[in-house]
Amino acid sequence: MKKNELSIIQSIRRRAAKAAPQAARIRLGIGDDAAVLEALPRGEELLVTTDLLIEGSHFRRERHPARALGHKALARGLSDIAAMGGQPLYALLSVCLPPWADEKWRKQFFAGLFHLARSAGVALVGGDLSAGGRFAADIVVLGSAARGQVLQRSRAAPGELIYVSGSLGGSALGLARLRRGQCSRADPAVRRHLYPIPRLALGRFLAEKLHVQAAMDLSDGLSLDLFRMAAESRVGAEIWAEALPVFPGANRGQALHGGEDYELLFTLGSGRQVPRSFEGVPLTAIGVVTRSRRLSLIGPGGRRTRLPVGGFQHKLA
Amino acid sequence: MKKNELSIIQSIRRRAAKAAPQAARIRLGIGDDAAVLEALPRGEELLVTTDLLIEGSHFRRERHPARALGHKALARGLSDIAAMGGQPLYALLSVCLPPWADEKWRKQFFAGLFHLARSAGVALVGGDLSAGGRFAADIVVLGSAARGQVLQRSRAAPGELIYVSGSLGGSALGLARLRRGQCSRADPAVRRHLYPIPRLALGRFLAEKLHVQAAMDLSDGLSLDLFRMAAESRVGAEIWAEALPVFPGANRGQALHGGEDYELLFTLGSGRQVPRSFEGVPLTAIGVVTRSRRLSLIGPGGRRTRLPVGGFQHKLA
Repeated sequence: MKKNELSIIQSIRRRAAKAAPQAARIRLGIGDDAAVLEALPRGEELLVTTDLLIEGSHFRRERHPARALGHKALARGLSDIAAMGGQPLYALLSVCLPPWADEKWRKQFFAGLFHLARSAGVALVGGDLSAGGRFAADIVVLGSAARGQVLQRSRAAPGELIYVSGSLGGSALGLARLRRGQCSRADPAVRRHLYPIPRLALGRFLAEKLHVQAAMDLSDGLSLDLFRMAAESRVGAEIWAEALPVFPGANRGQALHGGEDYELLFTLGSGRQVPRSFEGVPLTAIGVVTRSRRLSLIGPGGRRTRLPVGGFQHKLA
Repeated sequence: MKKNELSIIQSIRRRAAKAAPQAARIRLGIGDDAAVLEALPRGEELLVTTDLLIEGSHFRRERHPARALGHKALARGLSDIAAMGGQPLYALLSVCLPPWADEKWRKQFFAGLFHLARSAGVALVGGDLSAGGRFAADIVVLGSAARGQVLQRSRAAPGELIYVSGSLGGSALGLARLRRGQCSRADPAVRRHLYPIPRLALGRFLAEKLHVQAAMDLSDGLSLDLFRMAAESRVGAEIWAEALPVFPGANRGQALHGGEDYELLFTLGSGRQVPRSFEGVPLTAIGVVTRSRRLSLIGPGGRRTRLPVGGFQHKLA
């Protein structure tokens, strides 16, 4: 069993070494008590984020293929770095493997993770391996951003327009289809749910070119994440229901409250020019930041209602 | 429920802000998509480690008090930084809370974690909160070390003496007593199991003053951890059974194979002077690194046997 643990680590290590894009800055990768990394150049700041992926809470194994879970575990962390306008550099993965996660399953899981790591230019430099009754993974992503160019959810200011990237509700639609057993991986909504794309280039564009101040990623649904941004910024918001870019086939409820789209939510002064799209991803104004701390939904004909805060949330005792 | 989640995060955040020892270097702590930290000064390297603490695998809730678990979650990460000879700076905590982890339990858990964080000079700068069927925590610790002064488990060289700090087997003895329902928290073995002390000052002393090259922490038991150090260094070892510093009341099996002592294992050329203790913690030579890649135990009268590799290990499918 110890041999098994060591052989799993060896195999991850070989893959990690092959895939490492910034080998020169890694003094020590997987295999010691801690990873050792070259300090960032002056003028850069270190970003760190950590995200759980828990069986039964975030996924079900009969529904979610191993490859998609490996992708999503890392995508959650990368999306956080995107939301800060940063460049991801390194990742560490803690994983608790249950008995059913056999070699084939693990291979697929790591294939999904390394495929995304390579495309994002991220090196896996460490982690922890444990065994237990249920699958749990925690991804740590370290990244960098130029000093003073970090996007913060607390910086939304009254009068600024509220934008989202891409379209919303696709992941919720894909999950609903998976639940009904409609498992075609070619279905764009199912793909959006299983293989979300962290908006890394867009995050940097917002920070460096558009000089956006306030942003966050949409992991738990627009209404809940907007509530968080408004709370942190001590502002409110009006959302224009008709303006929402709804994923094809999704309904407005899914666009407002569905989690895991991993699009970016950001604000910018109404006098500033925002392109209609960036690298093929639409950027859409969906509302305005208000001094009043209410969240409102402006429906057809200008009818104003309270924006219900739904979204993906965990039951806590 | 969302309110519950937000109020838990707010309460952690308040505690973290109060306890933050390097506030000036934290550009952005808990509450955004990622923490933002000032880059390390030139000449320093960044250490990163991540460690899981899983219900059922690493602890049982009927046996382990919440306060001890908060302590141990962080102690595991700090011990890794100690084993690298580093200075811990920041921590992030991902935690999956089951329904039974009520407010009182959570308070105790965080009390244990923050108490150790304060004494180690570590600031909690981020994390993730989730709900699920079983408790799981992943601790991330970031630290620093002077360039070229990092202790590595792969650096043990034939002819060097093998040392351990403190005494061994105490945690295994304490766990055995807890299992038998002998729960006196004043029992030194029980305390050693519940509240292990990461050897941070010793790790830095080894790296900076003794110029030790090879070290690791004893988390899974001497025999298994020595096996790992030997494998990484491509060497073998002879352990002198009579020399082992056995925790009072523990037996030699517990000292050889018992996990979670969190003492440091290190090697140093036999010509080098190692003090008998450091800040009250004994440093004991227990064997020698060999060119032959076997692990041997030298018993009374010089009888040589193969060192059985036991130790704490997880069942993997």
